[in-house]
Amino acid sequence: MSPSWSDGAAAVAALTFDVDAETPVLARGRRYAEHVSTMSHQAYGPDVGVPRILDLLDELEVAATFFVPGWVAEQRPGLAASIVERGHEVAHHSYSHRPPTSLTGQEERDDFERALAVFDAQGIEVFGHRAALWEATTRTAELIAEHGLLYDSSLMGDDRPYLLQAGGVVELPVHWSLDDWEQYAFLPEPDIGSVIESPRKVLELWKAELDGMRFYRCLFTLCLHPFLSGRPGRLMAVRELIEYARSCGDVSFARCRDIAVRAQADDTLPVRPVSVPHASRDVYPD
Amino acid sequence: MSPSWSDGAAAVAALTFDVDAETPVLARGRRYAEHVSTMSHQAYGPDVGVPRILDLLDELEVAATFFVPGWVAEQRPGLAASIVERGHEVAHHSYSHRPPTSLTGQEERDDFERALAVFDAQGIEVFGHRAALWEATTRTAELIAEHGLLYDSSLMGDDRPYLLQAGGVVELPVHWSLDDWEQYAFLPEPDIGSVIESPRKVLELWKAELDGMRFYRCLFTLCLHPFLSGRPGRLMAVRELIEYARSCGDVSFARCRDIAVRAQADDTLPVRPVSVPHASRDVYPD
Amino acid sequence: MSPSWSDGAAAVAALTFDVDAETPVLARGRRYAEHVSTMSHQAYGPDVGVPRILDLLDELEVAATFFVPGWVAEQRPGLAASIVERGHEVAHHSYSHRPPTSLTGQEERDDFERALAVFDAQGIEVFGHRAALWEATTRTAELIAEHGLLYDSSLMGDDRPYLLQAGGVVELPVHWSLDDWEQYAFLPEPDIGSVIESPRKVLELWKAELDGMRFYRCLFTLCLHPFLSGRPGRLMAVRELIEYARSCGDVSFARCRDIAVRAQADDTLPVRPVSVPHASRDVYPD
Amino acid sequence: MSPSWSDGAAAVAALTFDVDAETPVLARGRRYAEHVSTMSHQAYGPDVGVPRILDLLDELEVAATFFVPGWVAEQRPGLAASIVERGHEVAHHSYSHRPPTSLTGQEERDDFERALAVFDAQGIEVFGHRAALWEATTRTAELIAEHGLLYDSSLMGDDRPYLLQAGGVVELPVHWSLDDWEQYAFLPEPDIGSVIESPRKVLELWKAELDGMRFYRCLFTLCLHPFLSGRPGRLMAVRELIEYARSCGDVSFARCRDIAVRAQADDTLPVRPVSVPHASRDVYPD
Repeated sequence: MSPSWSDGAAAVAALTFDVDAETPVLARGRRYAEHVSTMSHQAYGPDVGVPRILDLLDELEVAATFFVPGWVAEQRPGLAASIVERGHEVAHHSYSHRPPTSLTGQEERDDFERALAVFDAQGIEVFGHRAALWEATTRTAELIAEHGLLYDSSLMGDDRPYLLQAGGVVELPVHWSLDDWEQYAFLPEPDIGSVIESPRKVLELWKAELDGMRFYRCLFTLCLHPFLSGRPGRLMAVRELIEYARSCGDVSFARCRDIAVRAQADDTLPVRPVSVPHASRDVYPD
Repeated sequence: MSPSWSDGAAAVAALTFDVDAETPVLARGRRYAEHVSTMSHQAYGPDVGVPRILDLLDELEVAATFFVPGWVAEQRPGLAASIVERGHEVAHHSYSHRPPTSLTGQEERDDFERALAVFDAQGIEVFGHRAALWEATTRTAELIAEHGLLYDSSLMGDDRPYLLQAGGVVELPVHWSLDDWEQYAFLPEPDIGSVIESPRKVLELWKAELDGMRFYRCLFTLCLHPFLSGRPGRLMAVRELIEYARSCGDVSFARCRDIAVRAQADDTLPVRPVSVPHASRDVYPD
Repeated sequence: MSPSWSDGAAAVAALTFDVDAETPVLARGRRYAEHVSTMSHQAYGPDVGVPRILDLLDELEVAATFFVPGWVAEQRPGLAASIVERGHEVAHHSYSHRPPTSLTGQEERDDFERALAVFDAQGIEVFGHRAALWEATTRTAELIAEHGLLYDSSLMGDDRPYLLQAGGVVELPVHWSLDDWEQYAFLPEPDIGSVIESPRKVLELWKAELDGMRFYRCLFTLCLHPFLSGRPGRLMAVRELIEYARSCGDVSFARCRDIAVRAQADDTLPVRPVSVPHASRDVYPD
Repeated sequence: MSPSWSDGAAAVAALTFDVDAETPVLARGRRYAEHVSTMSHQAYGPDVGVPRILDLLDELEVAATFFVPGWVAEQRPGLAASIVERGHEVAHHSYSHRPPTSLTGQEERDDFERALAVFDAQGIEVFGHRAALWEATTRTAELIAEHGLLYDSSLMGDDRPYLLQAGGVVELPVHWSLDDWEQYAFLPEPDIGSVIESPRKVLELWKAELDGMRFYRCLFTLCLHPFLSGRPGRLMAVRELIEYARSCGDVSFARCRDIAVRAQADDTLPVRPVSVPHASRDVYPD
């Protein structure tokens, strides 16, 4: 018998798009704002990639989740609404895309709440959160619970949804192997990656992982960046992946919030602590 | 109906060759001039690669664009003319190949104008510009407009031609995925890359991108370096790519200047600012 | 005639799993204990990967060797016993996973003995050792001999078992090409690798190496990390590799301790010194 | 009509083996002599790889060239003679494998002459030279000419043999794409590379380059390291490459010295300066 979170599917596919735009580069230094080629490389995401992605999702009739930094939603006022209008979910992806592990507790809280304020001002209801760079801290789950969000999608402790002891937040886990960043990201400066793979290789990788997840009955959280996977050849591979998943007959697609609601009601799922191992000063260096 | 810039083709292929020779290495330090193996690795580009490329283009009857740093044209006096004589375009690729983002405004202007003077002295008329390392600044488009050039080819804000607000310059966008540098460049010192891919992989990558661009009706700006793609096995892959594009029946080839002229006359193309996002000191680190 | 160590097989396959969990990251800095995404990425190994791997080995009826740092066995008290109960070997993989080459002699000894004490307290008898990061020192083999262990599995001086002059310890050599780390490991921080390969590529690599080792009659020491190869798509590739090896008809599988016992009795195997070449101060820099 | 250097073949294949053993690691620091795993990784080259390679060459009846650092010949007294006895050439590959570009003029001379003295003492006549790391200086060709050697094999200014203005030395050019180092080399420390490719990919790469070189009638200088390509699966790929080249019917194999003799007698080959471009202080940084 299938667990209820997956509603009978062998694997559930959550297509997620992190609409980072300029933020991951600016988080490395404000000076990059003056590097106009680099800025254009990042702006391609919301300006060219997102509309193209929305059309593809419409055509294939798949609902997806878009994680948007508050700064990006603020700079491009109509962007988040245009995504919601097409039936997709917009979720919290920090304000500035600075990794929480580089911030103080107060800075993380301020950044978290500033993003909420932006979405609130735009009338966008958000149900979940993904940490910038997937670099959650011990405080992140508490912030999520405190502000009444339903789920997080930044951890890697399982490949099925699980519950965090901290506040009963649902975790929809991610993994680097299902992220397009490691496959495609390249800039001469700052260093964001150095290898540009072929869409064929990436499709092969993701199909292999999807097949494994169908076997082990997992959550296939695909993380795509419009400035990367919005490019023509890469988006054709995303299309092919979706069509492959459809052809399997046992894969369903869902928005993160819908998966989280089902997961919260499924008492067969594991509860895991947000664990901080005790690393003794006697053993490990600072 | 096709937009007029593409003249009825599904995708337009601009074959561009950046004849950098020793400049990208010298831009990392004058001391490398004494590293004779490294210098021979770079000199292979104009000395062996370019003649071979010109023969291939003749044989396949394709006109291309060669971006040549002024320093290279100066060091090898007959080079630029030999390219123009075969029916190709020679365009401005800085004087020294130092990235503009590393220069002051005055240094960028001096470098830009010094290249123009070299081409002028050699009787080579240039119509367009590509920034070294594709690292344009906020000043670059203004310099291009001020000196009456028609187009730039350094930005990545779209995958179709677009117009820059700054002076009506046409942008013929590039992208790292259509550059041979990330696929083939390797030196022990300075670090210019660390992976040497197979020409099969590269051909697969570029065919995938070309197919995507035929679907989305884009400009396929391929950027090749004679010191890299002039090597035998790699040039065979370039030949195969051109033959593949031909066999598609809906891809046309053109020099950048010809595309720019058609793009300038196409009022369906977007106008984009050379954007510098406001990255507040409160949010982003220096 | 086959040498006795291989008991008639063309190649002997030792499936080994390094259950490192959080240790390789903590060895880079205690501060990473607060990076909860990274910690969850590592915890996936023992928490999700190991049970799945044990099921696969049961199903395929293959006995394997699990190298476990003492710290990991201590933090997860039932882990080592659960592996032994399923018929597998648990072996010594340091206490803390700090590379011995970064420790003083006394620190290496303390770390080595602390791990022995953990296994002793848990009633786990260990027969062999693998250095953290495979970074053995000149002292490592002596420690192994002094404490009565049978074998080491950290060196690369051959691709068949050999004997170390130091104390008659059997060496079961490893190699980076048969390690999943270089194929799959990625973290934004600390740097543990930067490329995520497709399981197809990795399977192709390991099959090629297995075929070569059948030809040259070698020991195929495969080194897998549950936090990496425990992922669904990658574990499917491990399954396929095992099935391929089975189908060859001339590959046998064995635990390291069983191979070591046979190797110790095989006087055709070479004896090699743990060699420290004399690198003169006149010739080589510090 | 074929040029005389190639003696009628479309491409000439020079199989070259750089028997570096521990030297490239020691050149990064004497302290690595104490890293016994790393030392065993390097010692595998002469101890396991070379005998296996010699057997393969015997079986396939191909004569090859082994570039041996003087330090390696000195540490393993019978090694160079055992190579010559099997009909292969042993050539000069520095004494210490420190890159000449990191040495003063006097240091480069001392290192060069010290290697000659080792070979002289062992009764090995050497005819050619390859710079460590292929990092020749402006002085290297002069040293080669001064000591009466016939050829160098460290530069990349062409893909056919050429003559160096300095002393009429024949250059048998190399290239990073025909080197196994970039495809296979990995160590955690020191950094010698970070990607481990599949032998299938490497075979594909080298076949593509060989086919290109047959088309353009070039010298296919393959550079293999016994500590890398001596591994079972990789050596099977080398075997397959040699068999492929044989099956083409237009590829010949030769030792470097034999190619150099033919090249010296071929007055159609280009003469190239060992060029040091003038990189002005006004333009390029130190």
